[in-house]
Amino acid sequence: MTIKPQPELLKFLYSLNPSAEADLETMAQHLVVKAFKSGEVMIEQGETTDKCYFILKGMVRKFAVDADGNETTYGFYNEMQSVVVYYQNDNPKPSPYSYVCIEDTLSIVGDPESALAVASACPELMSMSKVVLDRTIDEVQDTLASYIKMTPEQRVKHVADTRPELLTRVPQHQLASYLGITPESLSRIKKRLGLTASEKPKGK
Amino acid sequence: MTIKPQPELLKFLYSLNPSAEADLETMAQHLVVKAFKSGEVMIEQGETTDKCYFILKGMVRKFAVDADGNETTYGFYNEMQSVVVYYQNDNPKPSPYSYVCIEDTLSIVGDPESALAVASACPELMSMSKVVLDRTIDEVQDTLASYIKMTPEQRVKHVADTRPELLTRVPQHQLASYLGITPESLSRIKKRLGLTASEKPKGK
Repeated sequence: MTIKPQPELLKFLYSLNPSAEADLETMAQHLVVKAFKSGEVMIEQGETTDKCYFILKGMVRKFAVDADGNETTYGFYNEMQSVVVYYQNDNPKPSPYSYVCIEDTLSIVGDPESALAVASACPELMSMSKVVLDRTIDEVQDTLASYIKMTPEQRVKHVADTRPELLTRVPQHQLASYLGITPESLSRIKKRLGLTASEKPKGK
Repeated sequence: MTIKPQPELLKFLYSLNPSAEADLETMAQHLVVKAFKSGEVMIEQGETTDKCYFILKGMVRKFAVDADGNETTYGFYNEMQSVVVYYQNDNPKPSPYSYVCIEDTLSIVGDPESALAVASACPELMSMSKVVLDRTIDEVQDTLASYIKMTPEQRVKHVADTRPELLTRVPQHQLASYLGITPESLSRIKKRLGLTASEKPKGK
């Protein structure tokens, strides 16, 4: 469902550009916002897509099923994060991952064509989108660093410090998969770190 | 050292945009290329910088030293890869990592100010830079996936398949650090996978 500019969208544009004299309402009109229901597929493994998404509200899980039928969770995207699938016009490749909403989700949708139109109509939006991409790279790099350097227990602590919402808003067996540990290990580590008391995960 | 448009730069612009009628030589004149000597620091841990780099030629190592004085290698960047440090104008944060050239390196240098100038003079370059950023995100995400899903041995095989240059062009104790294993393990795994024979690492 494509919907009209929302408070969430204006809030986001403002957060990127608080000092701007630009007319945020006009900017917002150049952007397409889509609402997804919990359970809805954003991108399916094997699909080629030129779309990218920026989450205004909600939670999206990234996962893949391998040749043996085993599912691994590779990431979670929520407020102010982007789902970017690299798209080559001349050589589109199927997405190795599925992206599925695990909460009702509100997202900006972009594609190369609309980006070009936006760029000429509203050049300021282009440099703002570069900020978003830079931040995305920064986040993924920091996550990667946590896998290179940290023990599983340190990684759980890192998630609790930097993305506490993952302890309460996502199914914990999927969080365990993402952390590369068993659900039992995750449960033990959370207990050791005192993270279990009030933060009861939703069983989804 | 800042230098004039180079064959490497034109080759890169052409690779992004082979069908363009755009004048690549003119585009190239909007870009700043800098040459670094092997051993030269690109970005120092603790420094704030608004620069980003795109490697045309050479190899850069990303690492950090923690409070206990232990050094961990977090990445290697070579031809066609970007070094992106997230920069917030209103709240610059010190880089958690150092980036040091471990080969003589030729790199495009960008910053927000020049990006704005380029955007108005040469809008096509902006959408090309978006392609580069998307690809960077894709690469980092794939690397992250390899850490989430793979055993150390599978990870070494993955590097051999996707970035074989790391087996020959970087010091192997740094590659081991990046893979989160000991140099001894790396050496054992390479032997098991038959990766040692002709691919002798340079001792640097």
